[in-house]
Amino acid sequence: MSGTERLSLAEAGRLARAALEASDVSADNAASTARALILAEIDGQGGHGLSRIPSYTAQSRAGKVKGHAVPEITSVRPGAFRVDAAHGFAFPAFDLALPELVARTRILGVASAAVHRSHHFGVAGHHCERLAEEGLVAFVYGNAPKAMAPWGAKTPVLGTNPIAFAAPMHEAPLVIDMATTTVARGKILAAREIGEPIPEGWAFAPDGTPTTDAALALQGTVAPMGGAKGAALALMVEVMSACLAGAALGTEASSLFDTEGEPPNLGQVILSLDPEALSGGAFEDRIAKLAAIYDDLDGARLPGSRRLAARERAAADGLQVKTALLDQIRKIGEGGR
Amino acid sequence: MSGTERLSLAEAGRLARAALEASDVSADNAASTARALILAEIDGQGGHGLSRIPSYTAQSRAGKVKGHAVPEITSVRPGAFRVDAAHGFAFPAFDLALPELVARTRILGVASAAVHRSHHFGVAGHHCERLAEEGLVAFVYGNAPKAMAPWGAKTPVLGTNPIAFAAPMHEAPLVIDMATTTVARGKILAAREIGEPIPEGWAFAPDGTPTTDAALALQGTVAPMGGAKGAALALMVEVMSACLAGAALGTEASSLFDTEGEPPNLGQVILSLDPEALSGGAFEDRIAKLAAIYDDLDGARLPGSRRLAARERAAADGLQVKTALLDQIRKIGEGGR
Repeated sequence: MSGTERLSLAEAGRLARAALEASDVSADNAASTARALILAEIDGQGGHGLSRIPSYTAQSRAGKVKGHAVPEITSVRPGAFRVDAAHGFAFPAFDLALPELVARTRILGVASAAVHRSHHFGVAGHHCERLAEEGLVAFVYGNAPKAMAPWGAKTPVLGTNPIAFAAPMHEAPLVIDMATTTVARGKILAAREIGEPIPEGWAFAPDGTPTTDAALALQGTVAPMGGAKGAALALMVEVMSACLAGAALGTEASSLFDTEGEPPNLGQVILSLDPEALSGGAFEDRIAKLAAIYDDLDGARLPGSRRLAARERAAADGLQVKTALLDQIRKIGEGGR
Repeated sequence: MSGTERLSLAEAGRLARAALEASDVSADNAASTARALILAEIDGQGGHGLSRIPSYTAQSRAGKVKGHAVPEITSVRPGAFRVDAAHGFAFPAFDLALPELVARTRILGVASAAVHRSHHFGVAGHHCERLAEEGLVAFVYGNAPKAMAPWGAKTPVLGTNPIAFAAPMHEAPLVIDMATTTVARGKILAAREIGEPIPEGWAFAPDGTPTTDAALALQGTVAPMGGAKGAALALMVEVMSACLAGAALGTEASSLFDTEGEPPNLGQVILSLDPEALSGGAFEDRIAKLAAIYDDLDGARLPGSRRLAARERAAADGLQVKTALLDQIRKIGEGGR
């Protein structure tokens, strides 16, 4: 492909870590963050991948993200604990929370962690998937800066507020991960950059009418998935993340892309359950039967099932990344910014 | 209104209990079930209200629902317990589970109950609302007999599988409750009965094409809300209910309306969290701020907020119910069936 470059996963990791470490990020935090961005890139989620490095590093150099933050756990109940991400990147806070959730869930059957003073948490499904690989069923809820209006209104209040879920299943976990908006805001940004219209149903203009003009959509609001129901789900996610973690609402959070303003102080809540305990030992058989029904049906596909092939390909062949982005990341890593 | 009759809530309760008790249902189970059906009727959810009494009582007389079932708790972990609804009505099992969830959540910060050998659980949001009135944040997931196809397929696999959520909020809990289908199957049944077409987007014909023919839709599948995302949410609910409770899948469950076949053995899972603990004491303030944003916005309305006015009206004026239905219920109560 013209304008792109192929590089191994190891090389991609080295470049990402170097850019972060050259931008006032500790080695541990750089490793955690680079790992998450590269897994997003592998899974075809470029919007949560290496493209974040220029804005991440600009924010850490500006002190909007604290690159040397050390996340901390405060236990509030046997099954519930808070994680202070300390205005650092979100991934080190998740790396701290997940093993603690596994340990508590194995004992209690269910546990929950609330992450606050947090930042962009990447592909929500990846955090759930790690818990499912430990045999747990898991949810992650996180909020984001305002982009969507409450149903019937015109003013943005809620973010793209994803719902993510994973459950253990024979070969690999079932992973469900969706924004509660019709599309991620990044897709509208991309359409504006190349001067193309957006499909109907993606967004509303500032006056609340549907629009296919990407520039107008960016001044307006992103449409919820499924109309009023999607807007209600986004509100549920806002309560489960911002309110339950005691963090900033989507109306209060600063941008995750630029260096302006205070740290965004987003909230994320993780919930995990022990399915074999709750089901009286029936879970494995039940989900295998459900998966077999999907496998046997013409046209049906379990959500998230394409990621495994993508990961095999990336392990063998590496990643194909835009040369302009790689040059930018290399320059940041050499201290050139 | 012609063909309808107004009766007090007390009188409606008496009639519902009498019909159930005359149909081989214990007094305790009749009281629990009648209370749930009447609250649905009050909230304008007629499909989960008194209209269920003829089919409920036919099922208990036939022994498909065990009217004298006594639900039982088995604790599997400190934060997790199973509730055997024993093929009785679902409401007595919920009445048993909810106080136990409150007690465990207050201690542990989070708890979960899995109900199996269960039946139609009515308005999902009502169960969550009761937990929110105790100061907890709650989810209920339940499955239903197959009505929706996996995205891309034509064969029904998943039910209307609702997601319900509630959280404590100043005057009354925030309640979010939605089927993951575009509409409840009952609305398509109603359209067929009066011989009217259904709106586009509600359902697919057996060949997988969209249809506005209600009869064809009933042979086909109900559309998920929001396309592929809604179908993924319905799958998530199936895993969270049938699989996690060790109950029947939507493909296995018998009808909730007729006396044919084995008991449906549906599954329901309830999750509750202590929001003040998890948020470090910030929850009440955060959700009040979020609610104030909705209150101040033109056109925005918090989901579920209309129920309070409906309940005040019903307490003052009683219920308006179809005379034909009331006559049927009275006849069942007199042993006439």
